[in-house]
Amino acid sequence: MQNDHLFLKKTFKLAAKGSGLTSPNPMVGAVIVRKGRVLSSGFHRKAGSVHAEIDALNKIKGNVRGATLYVNLEPCCIWGRTPPCVDRIISSGIKKVVISTLDPNPAVRGRSVKKMRSAGISVETGILAEEGRRLNEVFFKNMEKKLPFVAVKSAFSLDGKTVTAGGQSQWITGESARGLGRTLRDKYDAVCVGICTVLKDDPGLEASLGGKAKIIIDPHLKIPLKSRLLKNSENRVFILTSAASRAKKNKLACLEKQAKIVVVPYGRSGFSPETVLKRLYKLGICSIYLEGGAYTSGAFFDACCVDKIYFFIAPLILGGTRALPVLGGKGVKQMKDAVEVADLKVKKVGPDLLIEGYPRYKAPAAQKVDSL
Amino acid sequence: MQNDHLFLKKTFKLAAKGSGLTSPNPMVGAVIVRKGRVLSSGFHRKAGSVHAEIDALNKIKGNVRGATLYVNLEPCCIWGRTPPCVDRIISSGIKKVVISTLDPNPAVRGRSVKKMRSAGISVETGILAEEGRRLNEVFFKNMEKKLPFVAVKSAFSLDGKTVTAGGQSQWITGESARGLGRTLRDKYDAVCVGICTVLKDDPGLEASLGGKAKIIIDPHLKIPLKSRLLKNSENRVFILTSAASRAKKNKLACLEKQAKIVVVPYGRSGFSPETVLKRLYKLGICSIYLEGGAYTSGAFFDACCVDKIYFFIAPLILGGTRALPVLGGKGVKQMKDAVEVADLKVKKVGPDLLIEGYPRYKAPAAQKVDSL
Repeated sequence: MQNDHLFLKKTFKLAAKGSGLTSPNPMVGAVIVRKGRVLSSGFHRKAGSVHAEIDALNKIKGNVRGATLYVNLEPCCIWGRTPPCVDRIISSGIKKVVISTLDPNPAVRGRSVKKMRSAGISVETGILAEEGRRLNEVFFKNMEKKLPFVAVKSAFSLDGKTVTAGGQSQWITGESARGLGRTLRDKYDAVCVGICTVLKDDPGLEASLGGKAKIIIDPHLKIPLKSRLLKNSENRVFILTSAASRAKKNKLACLEKQAKIVVVPYGRSGFSPETVLKRLYKLGICSIYLEGGAYTSGAFFDACCVDKIYFFIAPLILGGTRALPVLGGKGVKQMKDAVEVADLKVKKVGPDLLIEGYPRYKAPAAQKVDSL
Repeated sequence: MQNDHLFLKKTFKLAAKGSGLTSPNPMVGAVIVRKGRVLSSGFHRKAGSVHAEIDALNKIKGNVRGATLYVNLEPCCIWGRTPPCVDRIISSGIKKVVISTLDPNPAVRGRSVKKMRSAGISVETGILAEEGRRLNEVFFKNMEKKLPFVAVKSAFSLDGKTVTAGGQSQWITGESARGLGRTLRDKYDAVCVGICTVLKDDPGLEASLGGKAKIIIDPHLKIPLKSRLLKNSENRVFILTSAASRAKKNKLACLEKQAKIVVVPYGRSGFSPETVLKRLYKLGICSIYLEGGAYTSGAFFDACCVDKIYFFIAPLILGGTRALPVLGGKGVKQMKDAVEVADLKVKKVGPDLLIEGYPRYKAPAAQKVDSL
């Protein structure tokens, strides 16, 4: 058991090497062990490349008869861009497979385990399941809800302000926190901001890893053609708007060269974040890093659409009734409806604090007013 | 040196036993040591009682010739309610005195050291001076600024809200945090709230230690006669107002039986926190625990009058443009004027976080608009 934990933790570490690269696939690591000795290990490098189990098996020249395979996620039993892993595992002579989490994909969930057991392999599952699930929180959200995972990042003062009473917002946190804030973009498929942030800060939203999408929520298509976000045509830029039909033809034509214009219904209370997320998921966006201001982030919280928070808190007081708060929107009326944030982690990043956690909504999203 | 630190830290611990009881005096602990062995120790129990050095000396039956006295604060050389300690130290035969901080009282500062040195005693000062100063931060503020020390306590959500968009504020933090919030009242001479808090929550502001004052900032004398704050006449209650002359005679007469009505000038922009503090200091209030709402706390920050913060942060999201923030007031306009909070300490209190720190103002208070 002790060893099982040890080797599974090793698979988690291996899996995490694929962070930001495997989407829409999960992160997977595999370790093959015989008599307590690691024979080989592997991980899933990026979508389309060989799976972790196969990566590990490929590295062994001799036979693996009698060995145990550790893998953080149930191996696949379906043809994707690569053949099913279970067939290879069965034919390899592996005697035992230890799995942290079952694959949440309904097409796989438990079937691979059954198939391996039928073939005489001893299979254990559910070990360090919470850690395994957390590692692939994006993939689990995708499979279970058919929606992108949403992480909200914000940077604010000790008194919860993101913009001073005089309208300034740069910089609240120090270099280390801002650096980490940028690094975190790599973990997600897309960075998303509201048009107010574009108009105010003209951010570039660069990530270190290539291929990341940039999403601008811009109901009235106010984005200036010279925005930094539009400059780098290498990147996939999505502009979510309801105003495409009313935009000047010239502007629309220019924008369409640089970005994908996604028309989303816009009601009296604005966009529905859930509708936005559904559209984005269909467009292949599995996870979003929302660097929104009070309005955008507030709307996503109101709609119970935030899965994770990254709050960078600077050791500063800004004060001021007119200063902007972290979150706007409708908010909760009664204290009993406050959104609890579970699994709070606090760490120092330079002089600042980073608070990570997972909002736990009391009512299902459908019952809430969701406006953006 | 190692031993000096050890014994001085012991004096800090002893001194802290007088926490909340010694005002307007500092907290002082003393240890008498000979050949590395503690002969006796003592501390200042409460204002008017014997000083720490004398407490320690009194416990030794034999002579103390050749011994070293450790004390966190420079012994006194003036007659207060008790005779000067230096005379007794000199006559005792103590050979060496190790002091953390000099007494900030201008009538003492350095004089006692000189006097002891003239008498042939070896005196060391300034050891662990930062800790020594922190221990008596209230006394240092009093002596250096002739103003009370102000600690602001607030409890709010991760997104910096104290009241929901629906007007609810109870309870944001859990029992442990609320308990600690109450315990902290004991450390200070007075608990202070604005009238809005009285009207909204009708708090009792009870402390465990007796003799604590309660201060209500109530410009228009709106306090209801049935307020819980007025019920316990044992406590010293101060109502700071500008409206005494306009109040109905009956109400004023009733209030005067239960509280001291302090008339403070009230300008176009409200009270000046600095004026309020000057008045309170003259009334013998050396330290204030401000449990104000956005308006009152904001005004104290605007006036650079907050010395310490206790921010209890609950793992909750309240959201809402209409929710109330921790701090209102004018705030800072430019990011470069943000008030830095030094010596940040973060700890978990039940499910909540407690952030302690010391605001460091850039401009002197006099240059700031200070309205309440």
